[in-house]
Amino acid sequence: MELMKFDKIAFVATDVPEAQEALKTLTDRYGNAAPAEADVFVALGGDGLMLQTLHKHMHRGIPIYGMNRGSVGFLMNEYKPDHLRERLEAAEIARLHPLRAHATLANGSEHQALAINEVSLLRETAQAAKIRISIDGKVRMAELSCDGVLVATPAGSTAYNLSAQGPIIPIDAALLALTPISAFRPRRWRGALLSHRAKVRFEILEADKRPVSAVADHREFRDVVDVRVEEDPSIDLLMMFDEGHSLDERILTEQFLF
Amino acid sequence: MELMKFDKIAFVATDVPEAQEALKTLTDRYGNAAPAEADVFVALGGDGLMLQTLHKHMHRGIPIYGMNRGSVGFLMNEYKPDHLRERLEAAEIARLHPLRAHATLANGSEHQALAINEVSLLRETAQAAKIRISIDGKVRMAELSCDGVLVATPAGSTAYNLSAQGPIIPIDAALLALTPISAFRPRRWRGALLSHRAKVRFEILEADKRPVSAVADHREFRDVVDVRVEEDPSIDLLMMFDEGHSLDERILTEQFLF
Amino acid sequence: MELMKFDKIAFVATDVPEAQEALKTLTDRYGNAAPAEADVFVALGGDGLMLQTLHKHMHRGIPIYGMNRGSVGFLMNEYKPDHLRERLEAAEIARLHPLRAHATLANGSEHQALAINEVSLLRETAQAAKIRISIDGKVRMAELSCDGVLVATPAGSTAYNLSAQGPIIPIDAALLALTPISAFRPRRWRGALLSHRAKVRFEILEADKRPVSAVADHREFRDVVDVRVEEDPSIDLLMMFDEGHSLDERILTEQFLF
Amino acid sequence: MELMKFDKIAFVATDVPEAQEALKTLTDRYGNAAPAEADVFVALGGDGLMLQTLHKHMHRGIPIYGMNRGSVGFLMNEYKPDHLRERLEAAEIARLHPLRAHATLANGSEHQALAINEVSLLRETAQAAKIRISIDGKVRMAELSCDGVLVATPAGSTAYNLSAQGPIIPIDAALLALTPISAFRPRRWRGALLSHRAKVRFEILEADKRPVSAVADHREFRDVVDVRVEEDPSIDLLMMFDEGHSLDERILTEQFLF
Repeated sequence: MELMKFDKIAFVATDVPEAQEALKTLTDRYGNAAPAEADVFVALGGDGLMLQTLHKHMHRGIPIYGMNRGSVGFLMNEYKPDHLRERLEAAEIARLHPLRAHATLANGSEHQALAINEVSLLRETAQAAKIRISIDGKVRMAELSCDGVLVATPAGSTAYNLSAQGPIIPIDAALLALTPISAFRPRRWRGALLSHRAKVRFEILEADKRPVSAVADHREFRDVVDVRVEEDPSIDLLMMFDEGHSLDERILTEQFLF
Repeated sequence: MELMKFDKIAFVATDVPEAQEALKTLTDRYGNAAPAEADVFVALGGDGLMLQTLHKHMHRGIPIYGMNRGSVGFLMNEYKPDHLRERLEAAEIARLHPLRAHATLANGSEHQALAINEVSLLRETAQAAKIRISIDGKVRMAELSCDGVLVATPAGSTAYNLSAQGPIIPIDAALLALTPISAFRPRRWRGALLSHRAKVRFEILEADKRPVSAVADHREFRDVVDVRVEEDPSIDLLMMFDEGHSLDERILTEQFLF
Repeated sequence: MELMKFDKIAFVATDVPEAQEALKTLTDRYGNAAPAEADVFVALGGDGLMLQTLHKHMHRGIPIYGMNRGSVGFLMNEYKPDHLRERLEAAEIARLHPLRAHATLANGSEHQALAINEVSLLRETAQAAKIRISIDGKVRMAELSCDGVLVATPAGSTAYNLSAQGPIIPIDAALLALTPISAFRPRRWRGALLSHRAKVRFEILEADKRPVSAVADHREFRDVVDVRVEEDPSIDLLMMFDEGHSLDERILTEQFLF
Repeated sequence: MELMKFDKIAFVATDVPEAQEALKTLTDRYGNAAPAEADVFVALGGDGLMLQTLHKHMHRGIPIYGMNRGSVGFLMNEYKPDHLRERLEAAEIARLHPLRAHATLANGSEHQALAINEVSLLRETAQAAKIRISIDGKVRMAELSCDGVLVATPAGSTAYNLSAQGPIIPIDAALLALTPISAFRPRRWRGALLSHRAKVRFEILEADKRPVSAVADHREFRDVVDVRVEEDPSIDLLMMFDEGHSLDERILTEQFLF
């Protein structure tokens, strides 16, 4: 693993009082580098802020260390103001890749978005969605009648994917979860675990009558007709976790919760 | 059971050629009563037509006998042009009650609709729906974070409810199925079987930020803020089934399919 | 509902110290009738004791009021030594019927047993069980290859049935749950909800090579070849619950736990 | 990949007529090497024979090519008598590792067995099993009350694991599935996906009162008190598949069946 230094810390925080107080405490103590010059970001909030920060700085390969000042802190370390530099030095870095979604809309426009957790499709109206699913150029499901369907990364497997009853995937498993939302026909299809190199394509059938929206993490595209999803190995997402609390350990622990 | 007569038959049919041909064959042979004077409706098509016909004539308590000229025929009898009157005389009648949904929209307007299968709610945008669920005036789930939730009748339990992984319910069970769609929090909630007399209320939380639509069978209401659902015992839905192929038998058979 | 009186109370208790202390406190205060002369049994312990007491006195139709001095108290009322007679007068009585199992063993002997929760079958060796399932004399599943299968009452639906992923059934639903344990073929069969009047028959296929045991609540029969299960409406099980804590309410509450 | 030659073919076949006929046809045409001198085994039958042959010759690292003459042929190639050597040359080889189970019995004896599909535990009597689960020396579930539990390889994930509602795992995923059978407490635990390097330990609690058997593929150990399971990377299982019908492709296809 390359050598990293954590001299210049840039802090980001959510708007809630306890995050803003922490921001003040920490910038007083450690300074606050300009984002463009930072060696590391420290995010004060919950998982939502971690995802936002990863999205914002995704292309620069700078590691992000989260401290929990929010309600959901699966990706966050414990908040403590002391010994921050020592904690950064000792932290383990999880290196992930995002999904890249290419969406074609009914009006012909093309869009791209990156997703750290999942790319999901959902019907927009009372009409059931009808979706054709291909993997690596081969049609695997000619017509899935459903509320929707999603592709999740291992990091995202404990989020929306789990709610749709997909399996939790260990971080180092090199897999993607393909999980239906209310599969109507075939009615008992439970989805599939795919290689992380799989190229997934969703074609929306009868898109005029049955409009479908796509969401890459929180970015939404209405009226899609074709959505292609694959891992983008050229982008590194670097999340930092305190020793003994690695992402792997968190996901393993999550699997034994009930 | 009251005595019924089946002298005046009114036929209805879908637009597909095989339904239209059957319509011609049968009206040539048995005549075609005006709907307002009919003793019985004979529906030529699939389950969609059966539901439509039930909806249209729901308030009049006239029995409907379906014959399968469509793709999905769970509620339909086998198509045969001969001996129609004898089949009607011999048929078993299933008596069901619909659900009545009262929906209040964000603009303050109030609406009612009847549903034979289910009343379902689904998020309209990328924002997860947050829904409070009360049964008989008591809050049972203070906040369900989800894609949606539905209430299904026994007749509807093999439809959308099954896709959302709810249980199939025998017709005479006097139950309703309450089934979540992608429950996010509580994340492993599987829903509940309720008494058929249960009054279910869904309050949409943060409805501005998290818009939700409601669908009663196929009728859709956008931007609901409050939806109350209960069985309407004052309305009888009468569906006719050939001897040995009762709705009960169909639902039992369905449970042993795989 | 018939009038009941609760003059003569017979107490039963498990061996744990807190149950024995409660027994002493209560018999000092309220006396202790001989079981043969009792109007009511008060059981001090957990659900296991309730089931034992129901089994022991099942044929006499005497109501049982449980108070929780054990680890699992789904069927028990809160323990309080005061005002016992008033609580008994005010309690709601749930009237249930047990399942009756008729088992034929490989050695030709025949046995009967009653079950309040469920009758279950499980393979005895490494060989998968192969079981034919008939309902009301009609074969519904010619060969279920599995670890086992069970039939549960509504009262038992929150016990073993739930662990095998069967649905929770309201007490007044007049249903039985038929639920497979690790269905191997058909591999995605999830079981069925049956009328409470259903007569269920399990025939063990290749019973020599693939031995199966049957359990009615806790009573076990090894090497069964044929097991018939049906509700016995001639036996009343009367369980008493404090006002506002009826069995129905408990089962409804259970369905909203997660 | 090392160079392999397929000069000396040893045939094995099941007892059914069509396998025996194929055996005669093929040995007439290609000869039949002594097992000790064979470069390759050709197994004529179903998946059971493939597993048997793998077990028997596991320590020698000789590839096995199956042709389907049985009822279940997930691991078998299509049967054709012609061009066998050409098919062997063109085949893709899947390299798997078995699980190694170390079982300690109640009588103190120690046993080892290898498993290609899964190692499973099941209660022997009416008493629920109570099992402590540790991963890599750390207790992850202090007490699982259940019918049983299993650890499956990717190859075995479509077998018993799937019946117990565990997920199907791609062959190259480097994972093991840990899946409960009827989890009673915690009642909604669904299992976990573990690293293929995980060392899993099952300690049987109250083993006197609650006897448990363990099965490694088909080899059974009664009355176990402690079972440790881990992948044995020192043993290569080599299965040969016709071009375009690799094990990966088979498992992917299996995931889109319903």
